[in-house]
Amino acid sequence: MNDDNSYMRLAMEEAKIAQGKDEVPIGAVLIDNESGEVLSKAHNLTRTRHDPSAHAESLAIREACTLRESQRIPNTTLYVTIEPCPMCAALISYARIDRVVFGATDPKSGGITAAPKLYEKDQIHHKPNVISGVMEEDCRALIQRFFQSKRK
Amino acid sequence: MNDDNSYMRLAMEEAKIAQGKDEVPIGAVLIDNESGEVLSKAHNLTRTRHDPSAHAESLAIREACTLRESQRIPNTTLYVTIEPCPMCAALISYARIDRVVFGATDPKSGGITAAPKLYEKDQIHHKPNVISGVMEEDCRALIQRFFQSKRK
Repeated sequence: MNDDNSYMRLAMEEAKIAQGKDEVPIGAVLIDNESGEVLSKAHNLTRTRHDPSAHAESLAIREACTLRESQRIPNTTLYVTIEPCPMCAALISYARIDRVVFGATDPKSGGITAAPKLYEKDQIHHKPNVISGVMEEDCRALIQRFFQSKRK
Repeated sequence: MNDDNSYMRLAMEEAKIAQGKDEVPIGAVLIDNESGEVLSKAHNLTRTRHDPSAHAESLAIREACTLRESQRIPNTTLYVTIEPCPMCAALISYARIDRVVFGATDPKSGGITAAPKLYEKDQIHHKPNVISGVMEEDCRALIQRFFQSKRK
């Protein structure tokens, strides 16, 4: 099992915590690229916190920025179970994160491979490396089961 | 002087507070459309708070959501001195804000009239009404003077 898979497993654990709170099950983990240390872990909390910006990625980024006392956190990798939305994709760029690894694409709400394709825009100066498809089926199954249970 | 101008003046006051803290001078005000009440006022605080998500719009939205105990704040108008970036444009949609009024366009970093043109994307379900050009010259002058002083 490579490192990407093991960090994605941590992100999936976060997604499951969100599910337990009846939040959309998306989880994120931010790590330091040199030490491999986990800087922050977070899950979606938009309902619980009454905060539409409280996506897993955003919470993980804010926590790591607080830790490093900077609005920029270079030399980090963000693991997230589902493709970041346009809000989070922009934030990832502003925070100067080097690498984004996500599980499943999100054709409906994604901001990277889906329609806004934010990192293809010239005005986004910092473009992180993007890896997709890590534990893709597991990540997608988690969120699909959640929405299927809502439709019953 | 119409209402849009008077609320934009409040947003400009917020922008000036940001400038006093050596933050990029952008200010935002959120109002209730029915009562005209100001729900929240905020200015850019990304440096001060070590938080790349702490744009004026985002802080104003989070505060109003806390107040209304909901991640959605329909029947509101957001006034902001400069065109929202893609991160904030997405957040405005998620929060179900009805109307966005901004002063000056931002061809370099905007998310609405500039390249990402987020509200033209099908995947953005809630598209607020957008009004631009309210006190445009004053709003633009404020931010241009700030960046000119930085280059000296």
